[in-house]
Amino acid sequence: MADRLGIVAGCGELPRHLVECCRATGRDVFVLALEGAAERAMVEGVPHAWCRLGAAATGLALLRENHVTELVLAGGIRRPSLSALRPDWRAAKLFARIGYRALGDDGLLSAVVKELEEEGFRVVGADQLLDQAFVAEGPLGRVRPDQQALADIECGLRVARTLGALDVGQGVIVQQGLVLGVEAIEGTDELLRRCAALRREGPGGVLVKVEKPGQESRADRPTIGLRTVLLGAETGLRGIAVEANATIVLDRDEVIRAVDRAGLFLVGLGRS
Amino acid sequence: MADRLGIVAGCGELPRHLVECCRATGRDVFVLALEGAAERAMVEGVPHAWCRLGAAATGLALLRENHVTELVLAGGIRRPSLSALRPDWRAAKLFARIGYRALGDDGLLSAVVKELEEEGFRVVGADQLLDQAFVAEGPLGRVRPDQQALADIECGLRVARTLGALDVGQGVIVQQGLVLGVEAIEGTDELLRRCAALRREGPGGVLVKVEKPGQESRADRPTIGLRTVLLGAETGLRGIAVEANATIVLDRDEVIRAVDRAGLFLVGLGRS
Repeated sequence: MADRLGIVAGCGELPRHLVECCRATGRDVFVLALEGAAERAMVEGVPHAWCRLGAAATGLALLRENHVTELVLAGGIRRPSLSALRPDWRAAKLFARIGYRALGDDGLLSAVVKELEEEGFRVVGADQLLDQAFVAEGPLGRVRPDQQALADIECGLRVARTLGALDVGQGVIVQQGLVLGVEAIEGTDELLRRCAALRREGPGGVLVKVEKPGQESRADRPTIGLRTVLLGAETGLRGIAVEANATIVLDRDEVIRAVDRAGLFLVGLGRS
Repeated sequence: MADRLGIVAGCGELPRHLVECCRATGRDVFVLALEGAAERAMVEGVPHAWCRLGAAATGLALLRENHVTELVLAGGIRRPSLSALRPDWRAAKLFARIGYRALGDDGLLSAVVKELEEEGFRVVGADQLLDQAFVAEGPLGRVRPDQQALADIECGLRVARTLGALDVGQGVIVQQGLVLGVEAIEGTDELLRRCAALRREGPGGVLVKVEKPGQESRADRPTIGLRTVLLGAETGLRGIAVEANATIVLDRDEVIRAVDRAGLFLVGLGRS
């Protein structure tokens, strides 16, 4: 039997999926739920404890007391300012060494992962735990992008890759060659909501989401799920294009049914 | 006496400023107000006509009938889809030649400027008409950026220049090293409103606005005015940094009084 898995849980649907996956495979689990981020419903009936983001010493102690050996960081966190974070001595020690403000999100996550490994935990990616985690290359579902959509995907990909290289965001929405919106820290859901008001007449836009080049792959994979598809349909999108073999899709079967029902395409983009 | 100036007016405050400037200098003016973009109040008491964006033949005829020889394109337009634009034969001819969807905003504006010149008009930039149009290098107003703000400006500048090179947008908001938001077609006002909800505790963010490298300088200069400052203060910004000798500042004296009153800095960035 595998060791006890610790799930450090932020917001979004990914932590819940990991808990369900562990339940299905009978794997022993402990959830360290981050205050202000993790969803209450997710930890119901699961061994768990709540912890402040800045309380690193408490968090580490909780993981050890609960015999966690393998760790997964799952779900987003809204990165606070240093003053709102109120780091305890353990977190302050880390930040003093790495610098908090100097690092982008990727740099910070990489440093946290490294620190956890130095503390003796084995850190794994969510994709290693989920079944069929990644979107494969090519279309999922029935609809295929047409010429205009392919051109929009290409445009979005160029912008998204450039932004990713700057550690800014993962997502871009393009409609008929126009970049309607670019994601920074507001997240993909907010980007989608905003672009609903900016859309033009005629063929709808495309959401393109890619992995940032320097992204710590064990901590912050691009993720899509049912919510992305439903919001996308409301936004008037024609489809969604994500990086293949890097983007986690949650509820794959439901997602495919939802895109088919909404008449959207969903494609995995190979590295070209 | 100079020839009659034609102002092709989109949205925002710039067209009104040009009208006022012509009034002050006694220059003869005719406003071609673009439907759905130009503000009604701006044309009151000024020789003008309204014109659809797609009605190029009508627009050209109106300019000729009103003896316009020199033209300025001023104010933003929300670029519509081709179907919403309903181009007349004259616009269709232009788009057939240049391609509408294939071009970014800059490419399209450059093509329009070139076309107007081929039609015999002299196209000038708004900065050539306004007095003291550009923000100079260094601070306007009393407040100076501190170390953290300078670091945020540098970060924003890197992102804004990269985005500009992709013809995406001009503006970026950075707080304590975090890119809170990136401007695409929603415009700077919307970017500011959105980032108010995303701000972190502690020292506020910085708005950085630069000229896109390929930007048609006679048609689409970055512009700031009183509204930018007031929205910036509401957003919790600490300051605004714009490209010196390229960014038009409207109501300079009022803007300086407003930043001083709000405790914001406003600096012109030299090319480094």
